[in-house]
Amino acid sequence: MRILVLNPNTSPTMTAEIAVAATAAAHPGTDIVCCAPRFGSTAIDSAAESYLSAVGVMDAVEILLADGAFDYDAVVLAGFGEHGRDALAEMLTVPVFDIAECAAHVATLIGRRFSVVTTLARSIAPIEDRLLLAGLDAHCASVRACGLGTAEVDADPAGAVRAIVEEAVRAVTEDGADVVCLGCAGMAGVTTAISDEVGVPAVDGVAAAVALAQAVVGLGLSTSKAGVYAPGPDNPRSHWPLSRALGMSS
Amino acid sequence: MRILVLNPNTSPTMTAEIAVAATAAAHPGTDIVCCAPRFGSTAIDSAAESYLSAVGVMDAVEILLADGAFDYDAVVLAGFGEHGRDALAEMLTVPVFDIAECAAHVATLIGRRFSVVTTLARSIAPIEDRLLLAGLDAHCASVRACGLGTAEVDADPAGAVRAIVEEAVRAVTEDGADVVCLGCAGMAGVTTAISDEVGVPAVDGVAAAVALAQAVVGLGLSTSKAGVYAPGPDNPRSHWPLSRALGMSS
Amino acid sequence: MRILVLNPNTSPTMTAEIAVAATAAAHPGTDIVCCAPRFGSTAIDSAAESYLSAVGVMDAVEILLADGAFDYDAVVLAGFGEHGRDALAEMLTVPVFDIAECAAHVATLIGRRFSVVTTLARSIAPIEDRLLLAGLDAHCASVRACGLGTAEVDADPAGAVRAIVEEAVRAVTEDGADVVCLGCAGMAGVTTAISDEVGVPAVDGVAAAVALAQAVVGLGLSTSKAGVYAPGPDNPRSHWPLSRALGMSS
Amino acid sequence: MRILVLNPNTSPTMTAEIAVAATAAAHPGTDIVCCAPRFGSTAIDSAAESYLSAVGVMDAVEILLADGAFDYDAVVLAGFGEHGRDALAEMLTVPVFDIAECAAHVATLIGRRFSVVTTLARSIAPIEDRLLLAGLDAHCASVRACGLGTAEVDADPAGAVRAIVEEAVRAVTEDGADVVCLGCAGMAGVTTAISDEVGVPAVDGVAAAVALAQAVVGLGLSTSKAGVYAPGPDNPRSHWPLSRALGMSS
Amino acid sequence: MRILVLNPNTSPTMTAEIAVAATAAAHPGTDIVCCAPRFGSTAIDSAAESYLSAVGVMDAVEILLADGAFDYDAVVLAGFGEHGRDALAEMLTVPVFDIAECAAHVATLIGRRFSVVTTLARSIAPIEDRLLLAGLDAHCASVRACGLGTAEVDADPAGAVRAIVEEAVRAVTEDGADVVCLGCAGMAGVTTAISDEVGVPAVDGVAAAVALAQAVVGLGLSTSKAGVYAPGPDNPRSHWPLSRALGMSS
Amino acid sequence: MRILVLNPNTSPTMTAEIAVAATAAAHPGTDIVCCAPRFGSTAIDSAAESYLSAVGVMDAVEILLADGAFDYDAVVLAGFGEHGRDALAEMLTVPVFDIAECAAHVATLIGRRFSVVTTLARSIAPIEDRLLLAGLDAHCASVRACGLGTAEVDADPAGAVRAIVEEAVRAVTEDGADVVCLGCAGMAGVTTAISDEVGVPAVDGVAAAVALAQAVVGLGLSTSKAGVYAPGPDNPRSHWPLSRALGMSS
Repeated sequence: MRILVLNPNTSPTMTAEIAVAATAAAHPGTDIVCCAPRFGSTAIDSAAESYLSAVGVMDAVEILLADGAFDYDAVVLAGFGEHGRDALAEMLTVPVFDIAECAAHVATLIGRRFSVVTTLARSIAPIEDRLLLAGLDAHCASVRACGLGTAEVDADPAGAVRAIVEEAVRAVTEDGADVVCLGCAGMAGVTTAISDEVGVPAVDGVAAAVALAQAVVGLGLSTSKAGVYAPGPDNPRSHWPLSRALGMSS
Repeated sequence: MRILVLNPNTSPTMTAEIAVAATAAAHPGTDIVCCAPRFGSTAIDSAAESYLSAVGVMDAVEILLADGAFDYDAVVLAGFGEHGRDALAEMLTVPVFDIAECAAHVATLIGRRFSVVTTLARSIAPIEDRLLLAGLDAHCASVRACGLGTAEVDADPAGAVRAIVEEAVRAVTEDGADVVCLGCAGMAGVTTAISDEVGVPAVDGVAAAVALAQAVVGLGLSTSKAGVYAPGPDNPRSHWPLSRALGMSS
Repeated sequence: MRILVLNPNTSPTMTAEIAVAATAAAHPGTDIVCCAPRFGSTAIDSAAESYLSAVGVMDAVEILLADGAFDYDAVVLAGFGEHGRDALAEMLTVPVFDIAECAAHVATLIGRRFSVVTTLARSIAPIEDRLLLAGLDAHCASVRACGLGTAEVDADPAGAVRAIVEEAVRAVTEDGADVVCLGCAGMAGVTTAISDEVGVPAVDGVAAAVALAQAVVGLGLSTSKAGVYAPGPDNPRSHWPLSRALGMSS
Repeated sequence: MRILVLNPNTSPTMTAEIAVAATAAAHPGTDIVCCAPRFGSTAIDSAAESYLSAVGVMDAVEILLADGAFDYDAVVLAGFGEHGRDALAEMLTVPVFDIAECAAHVATLIGRRFSVVTTLARSIAPIEDRLLLAGLDAHCASVRACGLGTAEVDADPAGAVRAIVEEAVRAVTEDGADVVCLGCAGMAGVTTAISDEVGVPAVDGVAAAVALAQAVVGLGLSTSKAGVYAPGPDNPRSHWPLSRALGMSS
Repeated sequence: MRILVLNPNTSPTMTAEIAVAATAAAHPGTDIVCCAPRFGSTAIDSAAESYLSAVGVMDAVEILLADGAFDYDAVVLAGFGEHGRDALAEMLTVPVFDIAECAAHVATLIGRRFSVVTTLARSIAPIEDRLLLAGLDAHCASVRACGLGTAEVDADPAGAVRAIVEEAVRAVTEDGADVVCLGCAGMAGVTTAISDEVGVPAVDGVAAAVALAQAVVGLGLSTSKAGVYAPGPDNPRSHWPLSRALGMSS
Repeated sequence: MRILVLNPNTSPTMTAEIAVAATAAAHPGTDIVCCAPRFGSTAIDSAAESYLSAVGVMDAVEILLADGAFDYDAVVLAGFGEHGRDALAEMLTVPVFDIAECAAHVATLIGRRFSVVTTLARSIAPIEDRLLLAGLDAHCASVRACGLGTAEVDADPAGAVRAIVEEAVRAVTEDGADVVCLGCAGMAGVTTAISDEVGVPAVDGVAAAVALAQAVVGLGLSTSKAGVYAPGPDNPRSHWPLSRALGMSS
């Protein structure tokens, strides 16, 4: 089985970290290929960056399809709360897995109420929106932010772990969560710290998505094309795919 | 007062029709400027096209801001159910009005239950999503589709009006709607036909958005910057604005 | 355009204050006429007073209709959370605007989550009821009370402003609101104080209702008569209109 | 035990029919006194008439209180979906029972999904509103109307029974109801007809309210005065109680 | 009238206490018979014990039916939040009353928002589930636990009353409840303590269920057999009724 | 990995069919052991049978635990909409997977709206309840019944497939489903028939549960013991485990 994991931002460090997490969740026979858009933002902390990244991952997939190089059994979209899953589901016949939704699915399977701990407070609302649209908000106790942006997390990983663990404690004691989802990608060691220090299971979205991708592909199932994810009509587009129009070779 | 009306697709015909509808709803002292993205799709009938158009309108606004040429008091985003409003709200200090939300606001003010009649069935789900996220779904009786795509509407406007009126009748008799919102932009004469033949008020989203923009600007109010619409952090982006990277002059 | 603004209580001071707020939101070509019921309560702090005031404004409108003196394009009902809007919508062919609903509409247009700050705690429940029935509760973060009754507000306006601003701060910091609606009518200077001291937009219901009335009337729209707001059957009534039965001349 | 049953309209026929239904549900030791407002409407088919009747029953209760003649253990408000219960709950220390809510309570106790069958279609919305505000809408399968107004029901009772039974059949077969509530007061014989012909339990609101009143009073419980039903502040009112101002003796 | 009150656990002390509470709520002409399962758990503090007790009460009813000894007009299931009501409703033609649902019904009739105070925190979730399934959660302000298990309550009744009263105070001041339901059976004196010290009505589920049973039976109503409570198909069962298979004589 | 699949009814045929479906979804390294309760019902078509089966599977697990013979990494509870999952989650430290919930999780991952097609109409309500409690109802378009009981399905499998396919067609065309879940266990060939004839993905709950069990166990996660699934207190029980009390050897 081959799974394409798409980091929606353009940070190579983040792509590498996501690849590590994805690979750790892969079966022996599963190949993980992790890549990033050819253009966009180095981190995603706003709606504008989220839309830009959605178009970036669409572009990356479009290039693969156009080149006849799309040979994957599933796609994981590794942006927590970001846009774009529905567009990929339309474009592809293989199933697409959003890490925010997958974390929530796994959390719901092993507990009664889950909380999400994300980076900045401004990301709370889009994550709530994603859970609401996915119909996964009923058992969400809270979405909380540790207050650190991407750069700060990179600069002080140990401090970031402490900040996330502290927020996880609040999720459990104040909001009644019995599972915590990590609302960001690529943070090694945090799930262990939460399990150890908070005493509740911690779900990493990338690992959850890879696991669910393997499960669904193993069942022989894929995105329903009978509804909203049917391929779109062929309305003429200019400058598409954008990376080709920008003169980038594959 | 100056209002920028953004058609998210690249069809000049549609842009012109939107301009007519917007201008008709403008006060004597209100200037309407209607424009379209520099790249993208000629029509929007999929999630992929919706994201592409969101980035297209972000690009158009970014160019205006970068050039010091953004001198508007409000922006209307004239895509019914399309993405992008939240990104513009982040980027701008003036208020932004989505035509789907504005149609729903006006419908709720004058009736108890509204239905939306859109073009293709595949657009029903994104419109439902938009209303759900905006908190405006409670009084939505139904979202219905007349089954005609953009090209068909263009080829046979009179037939399109009949198809929409027929669906509006079903919305009233079967779903209990007492107001009908037009779920597409730029269809002259449909609101009159619905009012005349169905006997319920019909709301055009572009007109509604222009009217609400004038109301909110007149109140001296604008987008709250205390929450999710605060300006995003300055994460480095490549190839932005895209139209400049693509070598387009303004 | 002529707008009738109905203060549902009988306090002339309050009527005058509402008239000032309404006039400030009116376009140059809009005439504001502000009046109060011929009988009822000097303030509305209970369900009983709310029903009495609803009948009072119905009576005022009935007299105008009976005398052929109703020459308005819209009616604003200036009681925050009070009853009566649906009755006026039945009686009239011009649209009717409730200040609680209009404040919520405007708040939703410019932010993600709004709070209402009202006078006494006992008014919280009826305001919640009004928002729920109007389908505008989904983005309501909280309804809070400053704890001061009408008399206290009149006796110490500066103290009232301080109390409301304090509660607005809690709405923003504890409940996550990014817009605050004033849950009472006729308090000059409060919206400015909230904007200045709390840093979020503040919406005054009377101003919002006048602005939305102008917008809807400008769109050529009015209350749908195809549903629940159709004129009622002519069941015989005694002593109606009450003010005539009470021997009051117009 | 003494229960005051308030018919909110002024029709003596209806008052008599309600008294029969209430008396049939009373225990041997329970005295039923049934009365109507001193002014108002002979039937209630609109929001305006509903508000007028709410003030009418408030007036009737106020007169009793003022005269020291209120010697009841509970009050039943016998308008299905009408306003006023909350005002009476404020005014009185004994509990108040709304027949729409009580019918829904009893229906929920004996089935999984109930439907209401009322008179005119225009009464559907206010009944839905009442159930929503009472928190009793979750198990409501539908509110349906038989299409006959009060006068028609009076003129052809047998035809009215047939029309209601037909609608009850639809509620069961199309909407999945397993209990039917009669959405009007004073129709002898309908519950038997529904039980016999439709095969589901039928709940009469007046009987349900009397039964629940006896149950709650028997438990020694009454309206909580710790929240929204605390007595209102003493704001000055003019012409109150209205019937006294209108010159009516008791 | 004869009411069978089923204590779902096997503690004779608890059965006796429930009998006292039930008898106190019975009319002069109502006979209360209180019994417990022939096997099961001495207390119910887990889902496993709740299922075991549901089968225990089913067994007790089955024995009565098989012996032709079921001569009751109604059944009260005296487990707060426990399973089993739906099974009894299928098996019996007389109505079945769950004490958690009945407490919520009565609380909703006399207040606007109720809280439940139960024993251990682990019982909060099942009570919330029961209210959600019964459609009675909308006006539930909170379910709180006093933290004492059954044994502790038995060992120190006065301390238990203090703990429950303290939690009731929090429900009123922090959660906005105006009625408190006791989330356990058989605690004499607690309702009085709550009323006296907290100033809100307190509802005991056993008393509420007996009162509502008398009300519903008095109305001549019973469980609808037109839906989910129709008798089940006769699938072959082994070892049923279990108490007979276990060799117990009646 | 070893997965214990529990058929909650006692039919050996059904146990065998479930084993086939479970084994087909197992990885090469996964051992499936399928068993049934030692007592109970041969089919589950009522709440009473559902509770009895819940206790039956609890008994089966208890015996394994008591004998030190529980050496599984996960448990699948193969009753669609039946009770018991929460009890097993309390009793075990390995995760437990309910086939109704798992089917809904997988359906939500690959489509926007799913329908469930079950056997008898009386099973619709319990399945709706299970989805509601699991927080998975938001994207459920409908739960439908093909009208055939277990015996009829066994007697005419081809006819059962046709009946289910017909109902699946209605789910897609009338309710807007784009995925169909099979609301029963052990029907070979139905998912293929639905995919082929209806054109939407069909999800079998047993296969889905085995796939998700493998995914969750592969992630190193298990049931959270920090909340409602913590082991219950040790209240004394009589006759437990029941099968031992009934004199059955293991």
